[in-house]
Amino acid sequence: MHRFLRELITEWRRLKLPVKDAAIVVAVSGGADSAGLLLALHQLKEKKKCDLKFIVAHFNHDLRGDDSDKDEKFVKKLAKKLELEFETGRWKKTKTKTAENLEQSARVARYEFLEGIAEKHQAMAVITGHTINDQAETFLLRLVRGSGLDGLGGMKPVRELTEGKSVLLARPMLRWAKREDTEGFCREFNIKYRNDKMNLDETFSRVKVRKKLLPLLQEMNPAIIEGLARTAMVVGTEIQEMDRAAEAHLAAVANLNTGALDVKGLLALAEPVRMRVLRQWLLRQRGDLRRLDMEHFAAVERLILKGTGGKTVELPGGERVTLLKGALTFTKT
Amino acid sequence: MHRFLRELITEWRRLKLPVKDAAIVVAVSGGADSAGLLLALHQLKEKKKCDLKFIVAHFNHDLRGDDSDKDEKFVKKLAKKLELEFETGRWKKTKTKTAENLEQSARVARYEFLEGIAEKHQAMAVITGHTINDQAETFLLRLVRGSGLDGLGGMKPVRELTEGKSVLLARPMLRWAKREDTEGFCREFNIKYRNDKMNLDETFSRVKVRKKLLPLLQEMNPAIIEGLARTAMVVGTEIQEMDRAAEAHLAAVANLNTGALDVKGLLALAEPVRMRVLRQWLLRQRGDLRRLDMEHFAAVERLILKGTGGKTVELPGGERVTLLKGALTFTKT
Repeated sequence: MHRFLRELITEWRRLKLPVKDAAIVVAVSGGADSAGLLLALHQLKEKKKCDLKFIVAHFNHDLRGDDSDKDEKFVKKLAKKLELEFETGRWKKTKTKTAENLEQSARVARYEFLEGIAEKHQAMAVITGHTINDQAETFLLRLVRGSGLDGLGGMKPVRELTEGKSVLLARPMLRWAKREDTEGFCREFNIKYRNDKMNLDETFSRVKVRKKLLPLLQEMNPAIIEGLARTAMVVGTEIQEMDRAAEAHLAAVANLNTGALDVKGLLALAEPVRMRVLRQWLLRQRGDLRRLDMEHFAAVERLILKGTGGKTVELPGGERVTLLKGALTFTKT
Repeated sequence: MHRFLRELITEWRRLKLPVKDAAIVVAVSGGADSAGLLLALHQLKEKKKCDLKFIVAHFNHDLRGDDSDKDEKFVKKLAKKLELEFETGRWKKTKTKTAENLEQSARVARYEFLEGIAEKHQAMAVITGHTINDQAETFLLRLVRGSGLDGLGGMKPVRELTEGKSVLLARPMLRWAKREDTEGFCREFNIKYRNDKMNLDETFSRVKVRKKLLPLLQEMNPAIIEGLARTAMVVGTEIQEMDRAAEAHLAAVANLNTGALDVKGLLALAEPVRMRVLRQWLLRQRGDLRRLDMEHFAAVERLILKGTGGKTVELPGGERVTLLKGALTFTKT
C-alpha cells in the first residue's frame, strides 16, 4: 500500500473515526491538500480498507470571480470521476470593515454550510485537508499577531464542528502530512489540483508567513515545520490541561447559587491559575470573551489584590465586576 | 528625571532590589546595554535615588584577541570615570566539540567568575543589561531550535545566580528597555559603547535572528519584540505553575521511602501532567535531565500504559526505569 494511504488509515484509526457504516463529508477546496485527501480516501475504499459513504462538499467563496467558479467545476468533476455525491454552496457576502472580519465571516458561513450538509446526509463528521504546514503557519501567524499563549494552542485533529453538537470536525492529515506529500500524491495519480491557497485564507500575512518567514526559518532548521507543529500541539495539550484544572478551582471558589467568587479562595491561587479561573468565570457569565482584553483582566486582578470592598470594574457593554463583602459578582445592566 | 532613569528605578523597586546598604555587582561587557545600565545606576546614585555600592565586573572571553582586550580597557576606563571598583576575569578555554558547547562552557565560566566577585564583595546580587530584545531573540532562537514548551519560558527578571545560593541574578531592564533605548541613552551622555554583541553570543543563529528574522517579523507587526517578550514571560509563568502542580502530584504518587511511583496514581493523571511528573521524578533521581530526550519519556509512558509487569526502559549511562508490581522504580548500575 502507498505510504500516503498507510499513514492516512493509521491516523484515521488513531482518531477513532469509523471505518464503516457511516457517512463522512469531505470538505474539498480543490487544492492539493483536500484533493489528495479525497483521492486517498477513495483509494482506501477501493482497497476495502474502509466502507464509508463520502460526500464531497465545496464552498464557493465567490471572491475571485471566474477562478472561484473554475475551482467549483474542478471539484465537481473530481467527485463525478470518483462517483461520489457532490454538494456545493455559495457565500452571500456581507460588508465588513477589515480583512480579518471578512475572513471571520467567511469561516462562519463555510462552517454553517458544512454543518448543513452533514445534517442533510446524517454524516458523523466533516473532514478537512489541513496539513502540518497549516498547523505551523497558523502558529506563526498567531505568534506574529501577538495572540498570547492561548492562541498558540494549534488546531486539534478532532473536535466538535459546533460546540455542543454531535457532528465532528476531523483533520486526519494534520499530524503527519506535509504539503509536498499531498502535492506529490496528486501528481502521482494525475490529479491536476487547483491552487486553492490563493483564495480567502491567503491574506497578506499568511502569504508572508509562507513565502518569506518559513523559508528563512527553514534555513536555520530544516525540520522547522514539524517542530512548530509539534510545539503547537504540545501547547494545546497543556492549555487544555490548565483549563481543566481551572474549572476545578472555579467550582471550588464559586457560590453555587449566585455565581459570585470568593476572593479569599481566589487569593489562595497562584496568579496564572487565578487569571485562568477569572477567564473561565467571565466566559460562563458572558457566553464568550469578546471585547475583553488584557487590560480588563488586569483591572479585575487589581480589584482582588487591593481587597477594599465596594469597588467596580467596568467591562464593555455595561457589564460590571464588583467586589462586595469579600465576593466578586458579575452584573449586566 | 530622564525617562530611562525613571523606568529603571521603578523596575528596580518592583523587583524588590535594595536601594541602600548593599553591594551590587554590575556585569558589564562594554556594549550599549550594560554600559547604559551602569551609567544609569551611577546617575541614580548621584541623584540620591539609591545609595548602593556598585562593583563593575567584566569577563574577558578572550575570543577576539585585540578586540577583547579593547572591550576590557573600555569597561575599566568607564569604571574609573564613574569612580567605581573594577574587577576582571579571563576565560581559560578548554576544547569543546561544538559551538553550542563552547557557548555553554563560556557561560559556566562567566557565571563562576561573577559568583566569585559577588562573594568577594559580599554583594547580594549580580545584575546584567539584558533587554526585551534579548528576551525576544532568545525566544525565537529556542523556537527555531524546536526546544519544546519548557524552552520557551524566557529569562526571569530575578532568580538565584546559582541554585540554592543566596546571591541573586537580576535583570532590571529585561521587561522595559529596548536596545534602541540603551543605545540612545549612551549616545546622549557621550558613552562610546563597544559593539559587544559581536562576541560569543553572536553565534550564527543569533545573528540571523537579529538581522533577518526580527526585521521580517517587524514588517508584519511593528510591536513584535514587545509581543514575543510578553509571550515568553507568560509561558514562563505558566510553566512555573505547572511545575508546582506537578510537584504536588509527584508527592502524592511517590513512595516516601523508596521513591518508586505508583502506576495507578500516574494513570489517573492527564497525560501532560503525567509527563511533567515523570520529568520531575527523573530530575530528582538523576540530579539533571541531561541526555534524556523525548524518546526516553515516550518509552516510559508506553511502559506505564501497557501496564505489564517486569518491563524495563534503558536510559543513557546504564540507568533504568523498571515497572514491577504496579510501581515504577529507577535504578543505576
